[in-house]
Amino acid sequence: MPKAASSLEALLADDEIEGVIITTPNDTHRDLIIAALEAGKAVYTDKPITHTLEHALDVREAVHRTGAVFAVGHSARRLSGSRVMKQWIDGGGLGEVSLAEANFSNERGLELTPETWRWYADKSPGGTFIQLGVHHADNLQYLLGPVARVSAHARKLYTESEVPDAVMAILEFESGALGYIGCGWASPGIYQIRLQGTKANLMYDLDFTHWDESHQADEWSTLVSQGYRDMTRKPVALPATDMFREQLDEFALAIRGEAEVEVGIDEAIRALAVVRAALESSSRGGQAVEMGPLLAGLGVA
Amino acid sequence: MPKAASSLEALLADDEIEGVIITTPNDTHRDLIIAALEAGKAVYTDKPITHTLEHALDVREAVHRTGAVFAVGHSARRLSGSRVMKQWIDGGGLGEVSLAEANFSNERGLELTPETWRWYADKSPGGTFIQLGVHHADNLQYLLGPVARVSAHARKLYTESEVPDAVMAILEFESGALGYIGCGWASPGIYQIRLQGTKANLMYDLDFTHWDESHQADEWSTLVSQGYRDMTRKPVALPATDMFREQLDEFALAIRGEAEVEVGIDEAIRALAVVRAALESSSRGGQAVEMGPLLAGLGVA
Repeated sequence: MPKAASSLEALLADDEIEGVIITTPNDTHRDLIIAALEAGKAVYTDKPITHTLEHALDVREAVHRTGAVFAVGHSARRLSGSRVMKQWIDGGGLGEVSLAEANFSNERGLELTPETWRWYADKSPGGTFIQLGVHHADNLQYLLGPVARVSAHARKLYTESEVPDAVMAILEFESGALGYIGCGWASPGIYQIRLQGTKANLMYDLDFTHWDESHQADEWSTLVSQGYRDMTRKPVALPATDMFREQLDEFALAIRGEAEVEVGIDEAIRALAVVRAALESSSRGGQAVEMGPLLAGLGVA
Repeated sequence: MPKAASSLEALLADDEIEGVIITTPNDTHRDLIIAALEAGKAVYTDKPITHTLEHALDVREAVHRTGAVFAVGHSARRLSGSRVMKQWIDGGGLGEVSLAEANFSNERGLELTPETWRWYADKSPGGTFIQLGVHHADNLQYLLGPVARVSAHARKLYTESEVPDAVMAILEFESGALGYIGCGWASPGIYQIRLQGTKANLMYDLDFTHWDESHQADEWSTLVSQGYRDMTRKPVALPATDMFREQLDEFALAIRGEAEVEVGIDEAIRALAVVRAALESSSRGGQAVEMGPLLAGLGVA
């Protein structure tokens, strides 16, 4: 039976509760995560892990100190399209990937009000890039491995809020491949990933307005492939998944020691570090920011 | 009746010839253009105008000195999709454009041999970006106005030639909008442009393998629009055009004083300058290169 706790303290003191799910504003994640970990709970938090790398570092220390199960909701990599793209890459169907382009955009920047936390630069630094771009920062590293450096430009164009509504970032992967993430917050919605390989291209397209219906989100997506010297695009079958159920099942099983968490502290920090590197690069006129020193400073190998 | 000249000198000495069309390798453009201009001919040349800005500057001097008609074959802006996107922008149908993304890629980098001029960095600097990207450098400036600065990364990944086969560039327009051009030379072919505005998005897609059949190239293209808070994509009608015929008709009429050249010396230099700025930026780790000083040094306002 679901029950409501009267306070955070009451919730954390309830021995029946083994795991805590955090879906509060980003800038409140750190303190809630650490309080829950220290109360002996496993923790699942929405993406991004925290709104700053400094907060993420504090979380990392607490995760290591408590040894508790910790998971971050980068659910997009569990969409059927992401999984199938990964299978193609691992199976060699794409050949060598040289370019990967992703875009996640929506109208939200035009609709923000000062009553919402996403309006503020100190609560949501990077605007569209920390809210939307961080999904692709995880997706692309899931698909192509670690990012080595990031060049970006972030602009506040048509939103009245404090944060950027137009961001473009170029990622260089350790593999040598180049990646691109475009994020607008002042246009109709887009969620796309395109991979260009020596043998084939793959193009994924999602109507994310059905995101919350995770049991059927894949029905609102398409993946097409394109072969060498062939301009036709062939539909690729996408087996049904349920990204939210899968990650919460995994979280529950991990608490019982019966599963491994796929997106834990280091994966989540790698995604957030791309956001941070992009903002730093933008403030330096696009000069590439190296991920290595940024991650080493956080203790992430 | 078509006739063949036995030499360049014979061709330029033939008073019946009013205009010369140059389709030779890029690094030979300058000398041929200047020779033709000085022989009193009008000149139409394939894109890019020249392979370096230094050569373009010499051409510019000769164009101004002779006062001859001079046109550059940036034909892609004449595709029906480009024209209709421009009408939407000018008519306000997109609202304010914040992001513009373009990609032009093909397999050519994998198929180059040392027998072909595009193999060599001194004949085709920038590889995929000067051969393919320069089209979008013109398209995007045609659509959104002048570029103010460029950040880019160019890499030689899977081609055996001397030149880059993977290039990503972020453009900042004087309007404030951000643009992106992705160019691969080691994957199946792509030709796309996407515009994201506060009122609507437009996505254009072309099967460029029918490029040379310019009288029906539009039949191999699609343009779709997407409205505010609407994920559906609606086909936009594309009236038939014939990009090559149109620009050659314009060239012929311009010789008779009955038309203006749409893409002349300054438009062509602006497109090539984006290529140059991208390569400079790449050599500086992505640091943005300002277009103003680059163009001022060339005398382009």
